[in-house]
Amino acid sequence: MNQAKVSRILAAMEEQDLTQMIISDPAAIFYLTGKWIHPGERMLALYLNTSGNHKLIINCLFPQEKDLGVDLVWYDDTEDAVGILSRYTDKSRPLGIDKTWPAGFLLHLQELKGASSYCNSSTIIDDVRRIKDAEEQQLMREASLANDRVMEQLIPLTGKGFTEKELDQMVRELYASSGHSDVSFPPITAYGKSGADPHHSTDSTRGKRGDSVVLDIGGILNNYCSDMTRTVFLGDVSDKAREVYEIVREAQQRGIDAAKPGARMCDVDNACRGYITEKGYGEYFTHRTGHSIGIEDHESGDVSSVNQSIIQPGQVFSIEPGIYLPEEGFGVRIEDLVLITEDGCEVLNHYPKDLIIVPMED
Amino acid sequence: MNQAKVSRILAAMEEQDLTQMIISDPAAIFYLTGKWIHPGERMLALYLNTSGNHKLIINCLFPQEKDLGVDLVWYDDTEDAVGILSRYTDKSRPLGIDKTWPAGFLLHLQELKGASSYCNSSTIIDDVRRIKDAEEQQLMREASLANDRVMEQLIPLTGKGFTEKELDQMVRELYASSGHSDVSFPPITAYGKSGADPHHSTDSTRGKRGDSVVLDIGGILNNYCSDMTRTVFLGDVSDKAREVYEIVREAQQRGIDAAKPGARMCDVDNACRGYITEKGYGEYFTHRTGHSIGIEDHESGDVSSVNQSIIQPGQVFSIEPGIYLPEEGFGVRIEDLVLITEDGCEVLNHYPKDLIIVPMED
Repeated sequence: MNQAKVSRILAAMEEQDLTQMIISDPAAIFYLTGKWIHPGERMLALYLNTSGNHKLIINCLFPQEKDLGVDLVWYDDTEDAVGILSRYTDKSRPLGIDKTWPAGFLLHLQELKGASSYCNSSTIIDDVRRIKDAEEQQLMREASLANDRVMEQLIPLTGKGFTEKELDQMVRELYASSGHSDVSFPPITAYGKSGADPHHSTDSTRGKRGDSVVLDIGGILNNYCSDMTRTVFLGDVSDKAREVYEIVREAQQRGIDAAKPGARMCDVDNACRGYITEKGYGEYFTHRTGHSIGIEDHESGDVSSVNQSIIQPGQVFSIEPGIYLPEEGFGVRIEDLVLITEDGCEVLNHYPKDLIIVPMED
Repeated sequence: MNQAKVSRILAAMEEQDLTQMIISDPAAIFYLTGKWIHPGERMLALYLNTSGNHKLIINCLFPQEKDLGVDLVWYDDTEDAVGILSRYTDKSRPLGIDKTWPAGFLLHLQELKGASSYCNSSTIIDDVRRIKDAEEQQLMREASLANDRVMEQLIPLTGKGFTEKELDQMVRELYASSGHSDVSFPPITAYGKSGADPHHSTDSTRGKRGDSVVLDIGGILNNYCSDMTRTVFLGDVSDKAREVYEIVREAQQRGIDAAKPGARMCDVDNACRGYITEKGYGEYFTHRTGHSIGIEDHESGDVSSVNQSIIQPGQVFSIEPGIYLPEEGFGVRIEDLVLITEDGCEVLNHYPKDLIIVPMED
C-alpha cells in the first residue's frame, strides 16, 4: 500500500475517533494498493485499523502476483467471507463502512456482531482522494494533454458527414490508438438538436450546415481520467449561436478565475451561473457546473450551488457550463479540467476555445 | 407492475412472515415494471408491502413516460431520499433489504429507525425470477435461436486468419445487426492455448492449423440473454483433441439428461463431472457446470456440486462442461441453455455439436 496515502486516512480516522473501517470500493483499493481488483459479486474488503493491523480479505479467484503491501486473507467460494472478516474486527468498537458495500454483507456482519456500531465512513477516503499528490497531478496533466490531441483529431471529422455513432466509434479508436486503456465515459458527439439535450444518447443523426456539435470526451491514460468538451459549428454559425457561444465561453472563464484555494466549490458554480443568468439564459443552464475527477471520471465533490466545501490545492475538477436551447435546435458546452494550485488553478486542457467553424465536405 | 409476478413475491413474503421489503436491483425492478432504470449512485427503491401499499422512490432525473403500475414518489438531489423512503416503512416491523443495496443507504435508514430490524430478503425475488413464466420462456427461446444464427455466421470466420480481437469485434457486429441491444457478456473467441484458460482475456492471437477455438458468445434480444459455447478446430484436429472433444460432448449430454424436475442442481453438475472424472480429466474441469440466466446472463442459482436445490419447471440454466489442457495448448467447452419442462428439459440451442474442422484460408 502507498504509505503516505494510508497515513492520511489513518490520521482522518483518528480525528473522527474511529479506530477501524472497511474499504470495499475497487477504485479506493486501487488508490491505496496500485492494483485494480474487480471482484464482481464476491466480497473484497480492505480492513484498516489505526493500530496498523490492516488486512485485505480477498477471494482465491483473484491471485495477486505482486506484493500489495498489506496482509492478504484468502477465502474460497465455499467459505463465509464475512465470517472471516469478522475475525479481525474489534467487536467492542464502532466500524466505518464504505457507502457502496452491498447490504448483504453489512447485514451479515451485523448479525455476527462484528462491531459495536456501524457508520458510513466513505467521506474519509473520499476527502483524501480528492487532494491529488504530485504523482497524481502529473498523471492528470498527461491524461488531459493526450485528450487535447484526441480533440484536435476529432474536430475535423465532424464536417465529413459521419453519423453520431460513427463519430463515437472513431473517438474510441483515437483513444485506443493513443495508449488509453478505455474511454473514461461514453463519448458525446451530438449534432444540433441532440446537443441541446445534455443527456442525449448517441444515435444515427448526421450533422447539417449550421449545426452545433457538442463533443464531450475523455479517456483513461495510466489509470487517470481526462474529460473535456468543445462545441464547434458546421460550415456556418447563426448570430444567436455565436452570442450563446461567447456567453458560455465567458462564463467558463469566470469559473476558472473563481477556482482557487479558500473559495468554496459553490463560488465556482455561482461565477458561471451568475454570468449566464445575468445574460438571460439562467434557466437554460440545467446542470451543475462540474465534478471532481481522478481515478474515476466522477469523484466525490461536485461544483454545484449547494457544495459549500472550501477548495484546496491538489483538487482536480471540471468547469463545464452550458446553455441548451432545444427550441432553437442547438446547445453549447465548454469544459476544461482545472488543478488547484497554491494561489489559483492550472487549466489542464490547452485546446483553444475560440469559436471554430468546421468546413463541411459534401 | 406485472401483477402475477408481484403476487408471487407477496406470497413468498407472507410465507416468511415478512410484511415489507425493498427491491433496489435495477434488473429486479425491470422484472416487475418492464422498465430499465439505471440510477447510478442515486437511490432507487421499490418498497413492497403485503398490504399492497407499494411505492417506487425515484429521482426526478429519471422521468417516466409510461405508467409503471406503481405509485412513484419523486425526490431531487437536494432532498434526503432515504428520509423520504422512511416515511413509508412500518417502523414496528422487520424490513427486507436487497443484498446489493449500497450500505450508505442502509446505514442511514437504520439511523432513522426505519424498521424494527433488517434482513437480507434477496432470495425472495431471486427465487421468483428463477422460474420463467410462459412469456419469458418464449423470449428465452427466441434469444437462443438468434444466438444459434450468430454462431453459424461466426464459425467460418475463425478460419480466415483474424485475431481474437478482430473476431470479438465481428461477433459484436453480428449481434448488433440482428436486433440485439448488446452482447450479454464480453465474447470469448479464444484460439489454442488461449482456450485452455477459461478466464482468458481476448488478445491479438491468431489461430494456427490444429488449434481449437473456444467460442463462448451471447446477446441480449428483447431484454433476455442468450449464452452458448462451441469449440471448433482449424484445418485439422489431433487424436488427443478429438478424444477430449468427444468426452466433453458426452459429458454435456449427460448433464442435459439429468436436468429435470425433482433432480437437484448438483445432480446435473455431477452427471457432467462424474463422466469427465471417470475418463481421467476431472482435475481439468476447473469450473462449475453452469448458471441460471434470464434478464441477466448470470442469475441466482448455479449448477455446482454444492447447490442442493431442487430443479423446477420454468428454470433456465446453462450446461457447459469443459476440459482445459494448457500444457497441450488447447481447451474444449460445449454449452447450451436448457429450459426445464414438466418432465425433462428443452434444449434452447440447436446449433449442432458434431466436431467441426473449419477450413483455413491462407
